[in-house]
Amino acid sequence: MKITALAGGVGGAKLVDGLAHVLPPEDLTVVVNTGDDFEHLGLYICPDLDTICYTVAGMANPSTGWGRADETWQTMMNLKRLGGPTWFQIGDQDFATHIERTRRIRDNQPLSQIVREFCKIWGIKQTILPMSDQPVRTIVETDEGVLDFQEYFVHRECGPHVKGFKFVGIKAAKPAQGIFEAIDDADAIVICPSNPWVSIGPILSLVGMKSKIKSRKVIAVSPIIGGHAVKGPAAKMYLELGIQPSVISVAQQYKGIATHFVLDKTDAMLQPDILRLNIKPFVTDTLMKTFKDRQQLALDVLNFMGSKNQ
Amino acid sequence: MKITALAGGVGGAKLVDGLAHVLPPEDLTVVVNTGDDFEHLGLYICPDLDTICYTVAGMANPSTGWGRADETWQTMMNLKRLGGPTWFQIGDQDFATHIERTRRIRDNQPLSQIVREFCKIWGIKQTILPMSDQPVRTIVETDEGVLDFQEYFVHRECGPHVKGFKFVGIKAAKPAQGIFEAIDDADAIVICPSNPWVSIGPILSLVGMKSKIKSRKVIAVSPIIGGHAVKGPAAKMYLELGIQPSVISVAQQYKGIATHFVLDKTDAMLQPDILRLNIKPFVTDTLMKTFKDRQQLALDVLNFMGSKNQ
Repeated sequence: MKITALAGGVGGAKLVDGLAHVLPPEDLTVVVNTGDDFEHLGLYICPDLDTICYTVAGMANPSTGWGRADETWQTMMNLKRLGGPTWFQIGDQDFATHIERTRRIRDNQPLSQIVREFCKIWGIKQTILPMSDQPVRTIVETDEGVLDFQEYFVHRECGPHVKGFKFVGIKAAKPAQGIFEAIDDADAIVICPSNPWVSIGPILSLVGMKSKIKSRKVIAVSPIIGGHAVKGPAAKMYLELGIQPSVISVAQQYKGIATHFVLDKTDAMLQPDILRLNIKPFVTDTLMKTFKDRQQLALDVLNFMGSKNQ
Repeated sequence: MKITALAGGVGGAKLVDGLAHVLPPEDLTVVVNTGDDFEHLGLYICPDLDTICYTVAGMANPSTGWGRADETWQTMMNLKRLGGPTWFQIGDQDFATHIERTRRIRDNQPLSQIVREFCKIWGIKQTILPMSDQPVRTIVETDEGVLDFQEYFVHRECGPHVKGFKFVGIKAAKPAQGIFEAIDDADAIVICPSNPWVSIGPILSLVGMKSKIKSRKVIAVSPIIGGHAVKGPAAKMYLELGIQPSVISVAQQYKGIATHFVLDKTDAMLQPDILRLNIKPFVTDTLMKTFKDRQQLALDVLNFMGSKNQ
């Protein structure tokens, strides 16, 4: 079964990792959010791409979910001593990724080419695509004014109350080469359990993307379990936008896009509400604590998609 | 005795370190070459300033003379893996210096202010001044074409034959604030045993510099011992420019500027030739192998300058 997955950072990376372990590499394409990319310390940083790549390559820090395993922090510690900004943590190994990517971006290499070459070096056989080679910048409208996404997310620790989002550059951003082909080729599109607002939102907002996947088999995995986000500010965002954080709200957000929806056992009683949105629900354990959980959820998703009655 | 020293990289740093250990900190000002500064990996790198600062702060790698002690190389190793340029070695601690300096330069902070603040953080009490806040770039004219200094010096390992030098930007570069005052206040100017062509040359080429020190007590320490450079390409440069590498050639280069000249015992027989240039010679051990050697040479220089018959 050929899968094209849409993913953001840590949560999405876990399911992508599961899919990568249960599918032949040529059968998995991952389209990654670049809306929270930013320039910092003169470097072109792509947090979601790096999290996905490090995770699939088995290089990710298992305790944080982001950054590199066995990381050291010499540069950051010295930067702190010199009074530099340290709110965005970059380890010594991780710095190399940003430095070399920045060098290539300045050399006019498209981001998708850089990702392709980095993946090759890191031994990643699956196809990982940035959603676009053109920069898209997520802006968070808050009660404390308009903030760049990483400023809101990391520096301000999601403190300010969210009023809305803007994806600057989204109209000019062409889906990266290979994305539409991968969607055409896929037996199903998987929307990973990433933040619907700021991780999946930018990908789905690309010109032509929604119409491209509209008539396809699209399975969304809820990032909300029992009204809470497993990680990150998704639930807080729903609340601040006046929406009850729940699997129903996630499903409503994906209405007209998702044909299938995976929710956790905790939320099993909400299946009828999903069905009422004309989306087929499937209940399983969606909390991925271990590497085995990732593979099991990936298998569940594939079985759900492949079962005859779907 | 108040000293203002002119210095380049490793050789100069050793004598500066010696002076820093035998003088009260308020009596030593160091004017550092910035002609071999360059931009690399998007970073603003000042090799001589860093070597001087790291050395005086006791943070320098004792075996190389450049870079930091107890350095790690995680970023560089990962950069190499990603196919990035690794000909200019930057350690993890060292990266922080370049990253934070670059951030401040982009924020329009003058280099001299950045150096002052870094020195304070590193516990350096002496005054260390970049020769200018405006960029000067040393260009090496060679038989293989015109090369940026670091390209020639590090990447090409001084291989191409030298035909001449150009200090791009030198006419627009104002000596940094405090340099002329430090020269006025000094009892003597010390030209450290740095490369006369590319380390001391740019400093002396600053507009107004030669006339400023012309009537002063100026003591030059030869970087050439027995016809050889202790480190670096000085001797090779002399040869390629058709000049015999010797203390005499160094003294001739400083004729009209240096009033005093320190040469090694190895070259003692050449004292009459120095005298003939109307420069007072002084013979001592100038090879600085140990920390004690640095202090001893510094004391010898001070005694030479302070002795009654001078």
